[in-house]
Amino acid sequence: MSVDFFESNREVLEKAVEAAASRGYWSPFPESPSPRVYGETAAEDGRKAFEALLGKDFPLDLPGAVGAIGQEKSPFGLELNIRYPKVPVAALVEQADIALESWREAGPKAWVGVSLEILKRLNQRSFEIASAVQHTTGQGFMMAFQAGGPHAQDRGLEAVAYAWQEMSRIPEISDWEKPQGKHDPLRMRKRFTIVPRGIALVIGCSTFPTWNGYPGLFASLSTGNPVIVKPHATAVLPLAMTVKVAREVLQEAGFDPNVVQLAIHSAEEDISQELALHPSVRLIDFTGSSANGNWLEANARQALVYTEKAGVNQIIIDSADDLKAVVRNLAFSFALYSGQMCTAPQNVYIPRDGIATSEGRLSFEQVAQAIAQGVEKMLADPAKAVELTGAIQNEATAERIEEARKLGLPVLHDSRALQHPQFPNARVRTPLLLQAEASDERIYKEWFGPIVFIVATDSTQHSIELAQRVVQEHGALTLSGYSTDDTVAESMRKAAERAGVSLSLNLTGGVFVNQTAAFSDFHGTGANPAANAALSDTAFVANRFRVVQTRWHV
Amino acid sequence: MSVDFFESNREVLEKAVEAAASRGYWSPFPESPSPRVYGETAAEDGRKAFEALLGKDFPLDLPGAVGAIGQEKSPFGLELNIRYPKVPVAALVEQADIALESWREAGPKAWVGVSLEILKRLNQRSFEIASAVQHTTGQGFMMAFQAGGPHAQDRGLEAVAYAWQEMSRIPEISDWEKPQGKHDPLRMRKRFTIVPRGIALVIGCSTFPTWNGYPGLFASLSTGNPVIVKPHATAVLPLAMTVKVAREVLQEAGFDPNVVQLAIHSAEEDISQELALHPSVRLIDFTGSSANGNWLEANARQALVYTEKAGVNQIIIDSADDLKAVVRNLAFSFALYSGQMCTAPQNVYIPRDGIATSEGRLSFEQVAQAIAQGVEKMLADPAKAVELTGAIQNEATAERIEEARKLGLPVLHDSRALQHPQFPNARVRTPLLLQAEASDERIYKEWFGPIVFIVATDSTQHSIELAQRVVQEHGALTLSGYSTDDTVAESMRKAAERAGVSLSLNLTGGVFVNQTAAFSDFHGTGANPAANAALSDTAFVANRFRVVQTRWHV
Repeated sequence: MSVDFFESNREVLEKAVEAAASRGYWSPFPESPSPRVYGETAAEDGRKAFEALLGKDFPLDLPGAVGAIGQEKSPFGLELNIRYPKVPVAALVEQADIALESWREAGPKAWVGVSLEILKRLNQRSFEIASAVQHTTGQGFMMAFQAGGPHAQDRGLEAVAYAWQEMSRIPEISDWEKPQGKHDPLRMRKRFTIVPRGIALVIGCSTFPTWNGYPGLFASLSTGNPVIVKPHATAVLPLAMTVKVAREVLQEAGFDPNVVQLAIHSAEEDISQELALHPSVRLIDFTGSSANGNWLEANARQALVYTEKAGVNQIIIDSADDLKAVVRNLAFSFALYSGQMCTAPQNVYIPRDGIATSEGRLSFEQVAQAIAQGVEKMLADPAKAVELTGAIQNEATAERIEEARKLGLPVLHDSRALQHPQFPNARVRTPLLLQAEASDERIYKEWFGPIVFIVATDSTQHSIELAQRVVQEHGALTLSGYSTDDTVAESMRKAAERAGVSLSLNLTGGVFVNQTAAFSDFHGTGANPAANAALSDTAFVANRFRVVQTRWHV
Repeated sequence: MSVDFFESNREVLEKAVEAAASRGYWSPFPESPSPRVYGETAAEDGRKAFEALLGKDFPLDLPGAVGAIGQEKSPFGLELNIRYPKVPVAALVEQADIALESWREAGPKAWVGVSLEILKRLNQRSFEIASAVQHTTGQGFMMAFQAGGPHAQDRGLEAVAYAWQEMSRIPEISDWEKPQGKHDPLRMRKRFTIVPRGIALVIGCSTFPTWNGYPGLFASLSTGNPVIVKPHATAVLPLAMTVKVAREVLQEAGFDPNVVQLAIHSAEEDISQELALHPSVRLIDFTGSSANGNWLEANARQALVYTEKAGVNQIIIDSADDLKAVVRNLAFSFALYSGQMCTAPQNVYIPRDGIATSEGRLSFEQVAQAIAQGVEKMLADPAKAVELTGAIQNEATAERIEEARKLGLPVLHDSRALQHPQFPNARVRTPLLLQAEASDERIYKEWFGPIVFIVATDSTQHSIELAQRVVQEHGALTLSGYSTDDTVAESMRKAAERAGVSLSLNLTGGVFVNQTAAFSDFHGTGANPAANAALSDTAFVANRFRVVQTRWHV
């Protein structure tokens, strides 16, 4: 490596390894878009850099390109009209195979150094990436900045830290000396080489292209595997920017830039299956629908497949000290990015005979009404509301609201379109809250989008059993519980551990069940149908490389 | 835990973790069956304990048993006539499910402590287990003692060490404090619970029931999963002894003994598939044929499946300083347990125009003859030979020698039956060495047993390319190379790394390619078709448990 990106980024790496061990708060990538942090002109520069891309061919030089395509349309109404170079699958794989030959020889320090440098430079472009995330996913700008920028970078760094930790524990050379009684000992020298699996494929999603894409991308890259990044057809730009930065760093370090490539397709002709089934593709990271994720797990048998799929996230309300604080927290969670987070809660279980609160016993109806009013209040000012809800990423999600209305359930809070003060054509909807009975099987599937069911159960015990069964059968990324009774909280914890889902207890402040923090919270458990892996942990990285040893007598 | 097996075994655990990190020689379980090590009466006591079992119901109290069966017949001719309690699959799973409920609550220290104590007690029974291994697998006594006793225990301990290392890096409790500028920081406490996957199944093989069975058994057990051990119908006794010891330790520690159960079937009605497809079975470890291993990988989709299957192990001879020493090493490797090791070499590649040696250039024929004569010489004394070759585990392997003869290839060394001085009915065969051309596709599959092909290639370069391709297509656990030229040795290493197979270079002394040492050599790479995992490494254990967290404000 002509440039030693490992040494120049070593301090961050070591801190990341420490943070993942202690699991306290840590990040090298500031989440505040403040000019004091990123520089006086950073916001403006980022906006301009984004705008300069609109209506043009994206400046990415990919060998083997046969034309350029692009169909992105911002959920806020902006036509992006950006075209990306399209390289046929066969050429992508061939180029990755060639890149693998030199990349594999570079070794762990180079793989990790390059990965860290890419992350550092992505951080410097957080504003530009934020605009790209905003105008492909529909996230409000603040979320697009934080989740699409620093938080995504954190998750990438976290994967690199785990990868380094695992690879660095394998000694390069070891001397082995076995006593032979009165005879000379047997002496051998052993050399252990970390070898990559092969080509890695990252299949991006439409809602969090960087946040969900970076863990797999950086886990594979930092363990020596060339990566083909295939974004969702409607959310290409954030990952195209990422690939561009990656290729620049690779080139600067003296490596084949084809170690990281972009795979583009139109909405009509998806190339995911062709790529996923290619015999040279040995690692796949996927975020998306259960149907597609399950298909990959069942069919891409030549590869290790890491999937994050759909689930039904749930909230159990048993009792509350401060119902108002509970309601504020829930309303925010429902409204945030219009329920388009894989962690967003959908079903809220409340005993039909009500709950104990500091204001005395409240009936099911009173609690349900309080939640509905909380949502109404939180979104009362459209100008503020749209920053929270963002826009609906795609039309199918907006239509799902209509479909939910047709269930014929009592409406606690109706969804309505909001006028975005800045983007008149933005597709903005407030959450739909419906009242349901626990016996209604229609609510036990993912209703992706701003759709919430407030569900009457027989008792908290019933709520807990129900939540456990639903996680086991349908999967979930989050579970949230409210109780003032330690015994009940303990039952919730046991149920969560048996179902294999993370539990948040009594969130009433500035932390929301939708959010997980890198280095501390595991995103997903890999223990229920919503995801077969956690972002990130040792299991997420340890099988992306293998060790081949050579031994000889000395 | 009423007895603290974690504390009492902590020192061994810590040393095991250190050994796996440095990868030097280490073992807490002496491989010498000397009376000075195991006690004056240990050998005799072990033999008596084994003999006391013959012709009886094996003393294992398994709930739910419906009768007892047993069909083991020693390859040395002894009728074992031992019957084992047979529990129907449904009852085994139900009992394991119940055991899981308390076992999961015990936590990592209890899981690891119990695992370590089981290994310690197995070590104390090494002689008894050696006889059991000898008379089910056909291994000579010394190998049965070492590989079936201390070395198997080492491999079990190694898996526990990796499991502990992974689990212990997850803090039980962590405090997370995120600064909020002028406001109070966000403060959360997080509890991380290690949760087991579910029921684990270990499918034993007929040749190394303990050595190949212990890694999976102890990896699953020490990560909180109850284990159902299903031995091969012809090699039950060593694993029945193991299960008995495990249940005694579990009971002594106050746990449900059904955390470890034995699953028995007759040769006619295999229950492996029924067990493997049970929805509650979430982990499977398998050693055996590629057909069965591939079936498990393709069909037992509810489980994580770790397999060791068939392969074609190869030797490349380019040049040699001391051909006699090469020949002695090879002859030993061919004869050892009659090629019934998954690591035994099968194809030996020699350039057809011969090789350079310290005695000058030798033709292909001269080298081939030297190897054949080396085998003849090593096995000249039948009394010594049978200790090395052991007996043929099953009739199909003996028949395979006949099948190989029918290939019509020139015979370099013919296989013959040997009379065992101690066991007149022992099925003993010396190796068959055949001469072949590299173009003969019939030799590129596993010919399990004492069958070796000495193969003429166009050049060493051809040998290396051939070896790489065969590993990639057919799998291999070992590759061995001989060269006095560092550049050639380097080419062999590159080929091995690309193919994903361990390489031994210039073995001419007391280390043989068939043998791997725990804590130092990875057995298998998990990077070629012969095995999808290595015994053992982090990847082998890291996904057998998951982490479920609970977080709340403090």
